[in-house]
Amino acid sequence: MEQALAAADTAWILAAFTAVALMVPGLALFYGGMLGIKSALNMIMMVLGGFAVAGVVWVFFGPGAVLGDSVGGLGLIGNPFTDVGLASLLEEDPAGGIPAALTAAFHLLFAGITVAIIAGAVADRMKFSAWLVFSGIWLVLVYFPVAHWVFAFDDEDAGTKGGWIANALGAHDFAGGTAVHMNAGVAALAVALALGARRGFPHVARPHSLPLVVLGGGILMFGWFGFNGGSAGGANHTAGVVVLNTMAAAVAGLLGWILVERITEKHATTLGAVSGMIAALVGITPAASLVSPLGALAIGVVAGAVSCFAVGWKFKMGYDDSLDVVAIHLMGGVVGTTLIAFIATAAAPAGVDGLFFGGGIDFLGRQIVAMAAVFAYSFVVTFLIAKVLDKIMGIRVDAETEKMGIDVPVHGETAYVMDSFTTGTQSKMRPSDFAEDRDIIVPTT
Amino acid sequence: MEQALAAADTAWILAAFTAVALMVPGLALFYGGMLGIKSALNMIMMVLGGFAVAGVVWVFFGPGAVLGDSVGGLGLIGNPFTDVGLASLLEEDPAGGIPAALTAAFHLLFAGITVAIIAGAVADRMKFSAWLVFSGIWLVLVYFPVAHWVFAFDDEDAGTKGGWIANALGAHDFAGGTAVHMNAGVAALAVALALGARRGFPHVARPHSLPLVVLGGGILMFGWFGFNGGSAGGANHTAGVVVLNTMAAAVAGLLGWILVERITEKHATTLGAVSGMIAALVGITPAASLVSPLGALAIGVVAGAVSCFAVGWKFKMGYDDSLDVVAIHLMGGVVGTTLIAFIATAAAPAGVDGLFFGGGIDFLGRQIVAMAAVFAYSFVVTFLIAKVLDKIMGIRVDAETEKMGIDVPVHGETAYVMDSFTTGTQSKMRPSDFAEDRDIIVPTT
Amino acid sequence: MEQALAAADTAWILAAFTAVALMVPGLALFYGGMLGIKSALNMIMMVLGGFAVAGVVWVFFGPGAVLGDSVGGLGLIGNPFTDVGLASLLEEDPAGGIPAALTAAFHLLFAGITVAIIAGAVADRMKFSAWLVFSGIWLVLVYFPVAHWVFAFDDEDAGTKGGWIANALGAHDFAGGTAVHMNAGVAALAVALALGARRGFPHVARPHSLPLVVLGGGILMFGWFGFNGGSAGGANHTAGVVVLNTMAAAVAGLLGWILVERITEKHATTLGAVSGMIAALVGITPAASLVSPLGALAIGVVAGAVSCFAVGWKFKMGYDDSLDVVAIHLMGGVVGTTLIAFIATAAAPAGVDGLFFGGGIDFLGRQIVAMAAVFAYSFVVTFLIAKVLDKIMGIRVDAETEKMGIDVPVHGETAYVMDSFTTGTQSKMRPSDFAEDRDIIVPTT
Repeated sequence: MEQALAAADTAWILAAFTAVALMVPGLALFYGGMLGIKSALNMIMMVLGGFAVAGVVWVFFGPGAVLGDSVGGLGLIGNPFTDVGLASLLEEDPAGGIPAALTAAFHLLFAGITVAIIAGAVADRMKFSAWLVFSGIWLVLVYFPVAHWVFAFDDEDAGTKGGWIANALGAHDFAGGTAVHMNAGVAALAVALALGARRGFPHVARPHSLPLVVLGGGILMFGWFGFNGGSAGGANHTAGVVVLNTMAAAVAGLLGWILVERITEKHATTLGAVSGMIAALVGITPAASLVSPLGALAIGVVAGAVSCFAVGWKFKMGYDDSLDVVAIHLMGGVVGTTLIAFIATAAAPAGVDGLFFGGGIDFLGRQIVAMAAVFAYSFVVTFLIAKVLDKIMGIRVDAETEKMGIDVPVHGETAYVMDSFTTGTQSKMRPSDFAEDRDIIVPTT
Repeated sequence: MEQALAAADTAWILAAFTAVALMVPGLALFYGGMLGIKSALNMIMMVLGGFAVAGVVWVFFGPGAVLGDSVGGLGLIGNPFTDVGLASLLEEDPAGGIPAALTAAFHLLFAGITVAIIAGAVADRMKFSAWLVFSGIWLVLVYFPVAHWVFAFDDEDAGTKGGWIANALGAHDFAGGTAVHMNAGVAALAVALALGARRGFPHVARPHSLPLVVLGGGILMFGWFGFNGGSAGGANHTAGVVVLNTMAAAVAGLLGWILVERITEKHATTLGAVSGMIAALVGITPAASLVSPLGALAIGVVAGAVSCFAVGWKFKMGYDDSLDVVAIHLMGGVVGTTLIAFIATAAAPAGVDGLFFGGGIDFLGRQIVAMAAVFAYSFVVTFLIAKVLDKIMGIRVDAETEKMGIDVPVHGETAYVMDSFTTGTQSKMRPSDFAEDRDIIVPTT
Repeated sequence: MEQALAAADTAWILAAFTAVALMVPGLALFYGGMLGIKSALNMIMMVLGGFAVAGVVWVFFGPGAVLGDSVGGLGLIGNPFTDVGLASLLEEDPAGGIPAALTAAFHLLFAGITVAIIAGAVADRMKFSAWLVFSGIWLVLVYFPVAHWVFAFDDEDAGTKGGWIANALGAHDFAGGTAVHMNAGVAALAVALALGARRGFPHVARPHSLPLVVLGGGILMFGWFGFNGGSAGGANHTAGVVVLNTMAAAVAGLLGWILVERITEKHATTLGAVSGMIAALVGITPAASLVSPLGALAIGVVAGAVSCFAVGWKFKMGYDDSLDVVAIHLMGGVVGTTLIAFIATAAAPAGVDGLFFGGGIDFLGRQIVAMAAVFAYSFVVTFLIAKVLDKIMGIRVDAETEKMGIDVPVHGETAYVMDSFTTGTQSKMRPSDFAEDRDIIVPTT
């Protein structure tokens, strides 16, 4: 019976892992589509390369550092040297449960995606080599401790201690509103400041392909059901509530953003619709097991609207967060992590009441401490990493490369090679109509 | 044991839900790629926006209206007010089974996708605001009752009554050939007629990106395994047969369409291949648990061929069903719903014989009544909704916007911004070759 | 209990099947993006069409031929006539386990994808009709026997005999390094030689859309977790190890390829990153249950680096393997199938030691025999099929078509119709900025 239940849980976590894996190319295309055509490949490479470096480092040290027994029982960092290379995961746990190798793989994706999210802030100007080095160092110095704080729970049976936010503080973060999204959003702000703004900012290239943005954002939405749903730990009632709430937030966020846009700027944009959906998915991440479906709608619409307003901050304050990682991931995370202190309901699987349902003000206090700690630690350490790396190897491309766009000088490629295409109209896709079409050659001026 | 089986079923429905969720951006890109480049984003926004409105309304009223106890036991509509806001879904059912929240989420996708399918008929000319309002009203007035008719089964244990087609009539529709595809297809026809044809029809823009169409169609195929496979209700023998039959139909439909095309128009097109696959997937939707794999091949090839012929009808009859929702969803649904009355076999999981295997003619009669009812109800009510909305707010964009293409005036965006790209050939992707490439600037005439 | 475990296994295989299904459009777009813009649709059609033909043939004969009892107990080919049309799969197996219909559907995907991989070698010059015929014949004459050799295990309970490589020889191939990837890679070489090089080779069109390549490659990575993870046969410890190893290999392969590129050609390319990831996924396919996570990293980095070098061979030897199926699938398969004889560890689920962990040299011998047999059989039979087909119907398009690009003359379509787009920069997606944009019309010279 236990074994059969564990197999069912394993089935869902395998499927959830697989869905989350698609978020990696999804994020690459979501970001790549938002860039101008001359640096789109570089953006894609930043996401894929940063993820790959993080993945390799994870296979050496990750599970111990994030999920392992706290060093000294302090709740600050797990022991990264308990199982270097993860060979112990090959042994089948006689006690059953979800295979430890699968848990390690699932958390590899969390780690790698968190790193990759940061890339959106450094578009168009960071050196690719410096980004790869940054990815590995940031994973170890920032993600490992922060994720330990939030994701490692004390285990009395095994006699292990987890992270301070999850246990000593007792703040709530279902699937990474702080450890993943705020963490990446704050780091994005720090590294954007360390890099400085792009040449010409705020006059920069428009998104070169919105269909690519819709595709990438749609894939992210898909993967999010694995991300949040898999965080329920199995094929259970909690997972059911979580996917319903996640979907409710997503649709509300989409509408929330385009409503604000329509009112303030007269147009409901595609970029806004997808951004609002993603902001809402960020917002529901810490909250998915704590709120009702109506609460999820509320978090979605607020996250969508707040992030829409927050996009403008970078112009006022002058930080060049190229693809709005701060507005969407940092602010979305803040909205969700904060709102649960008000609208969590004990009827939901997590079983805790927010202020509006009779819970105490201490809940809000714990959430604020958790957010402040993640903000401060991630900002300071990320900024230092970036500055030290800049001294050692330089983190910004040269002015000529930045002017040309990064794709050709750094990667030796252009995103598209479209030297001819046809035009015309027709009533139906009647192939014979093409006979007369002449190829149109773009003149090589 | 029961609990472990329910957990396994839950694992599959969670995965199936996740797969179906990707159909939303899949449909947006499938449709968007078929439009001309000046209205592609608008099409994408129609799909995403209509889905989002439906999703929000669903969270308030959906599960009760579609799956709940029939009002007055009449089998016409469930009670939408049994659980406004879905708070009761937070409670874990002590009897086990698939979490009610998950079932509600799965059916949210069915509802939202049905609405979004209709958008293909209104391309290039419907007002975005009118479409969003239409989406919510259509969901309530058309989808809610029709889905109740087909998807709500009487439950003697719970003492609840379901819809008249599923129970009193006893027609067969495995996963929504009538409630989803015919329903959307008929509504598409009605709203296309209410809107009138596009300016210049039938001389309209060719699909601007067939790779996008292939991608969107491929994603739809992927999601369909969740849609049909998840409709088996769990991780069981039926689900295994359903996915095999669904795949068999898809490949047969692809070949069926391009064979007809090749014969009648001399070319096997990419658009045809993908369209044939989708038409076949529509055709197998009502049939997947009722036929043998050879039966599935037959449904696939017939649906592909019939839909290929049906594309031409709009030119003869003059309705501007922009992306052939009638040919593919309505006719595909009719083919599948009708054919099972002939080729269903009691050896298949649903256990019912069609005419060719010794079943009675009454089976065909029940299918025809179900189809006629859905056709009539959906057509009349949809047409009325569109006409009333037109009186109140206008449902068509102004002539200037239509002439320009909708993306810039309504959404303030263009799908692509590609101001420079390179040309040339090379033997290998040898980056040094790019050194001499000069950027080619498209002249701003 | 047994039943509940089987349901859990079924849940995962259903999800894995669904993920693998997305590899079909993923492969189509991966290949399509690598072609020049005038033959991209043809490439997509080759993948979809070849898959569809294989799928239809599979429904008639596949499961018997590949997984069925060996004819004469020789281990050469299963009996394809045991269940023509697969009607027996409709019956629920009273003994439980994974539904036979699901197993048949899962292996349909393996078969169809293997055929489709070959298409990458024939780009830009093979006749579409000849390719469809080739697909069906190759499936029967090459895939059926080779897959039987590798995938059919003796079953003492049922009294059936399987293939000679899996049983009599006892070589190891977890999920198809020989039967799928080497098989397709060798066939690609044979058919490329039979066709001859493209006009102008090695001066051919550059990849027309690298974002499409990234998308397709990313989808393949996603599907691979279903492909390899599903080959574990259920939701178990082995599946957990397999997905971890598969991910470890993928990230290492990505880095391995771009490292070699960076050193030898000064640029780390997007095409290289994705190619390295795919080569590593090929390499881990035969190995995923046999190695540790560090072993998976090693296979990944070696496969990525070796395949990067192998891309150059076609220029030296003069075979026109258009999209490097030989370098990636054949060589990736060779790397993985060979390396396990050295680095397999008995601690891994398959429980067998390679040379470095105290295993015998006979392991390497068995792997070499298996590879040599697949290489020889697939090469000779594929070459003969291509040559005979060429005699009968011609397998190469005429010179005029090849010169024009295949899309318009054969499929009557162009991939894109982009007759106008806008340029410009802006600080934010501020729709009002578009008001002044004038459409830019590409002159029809």
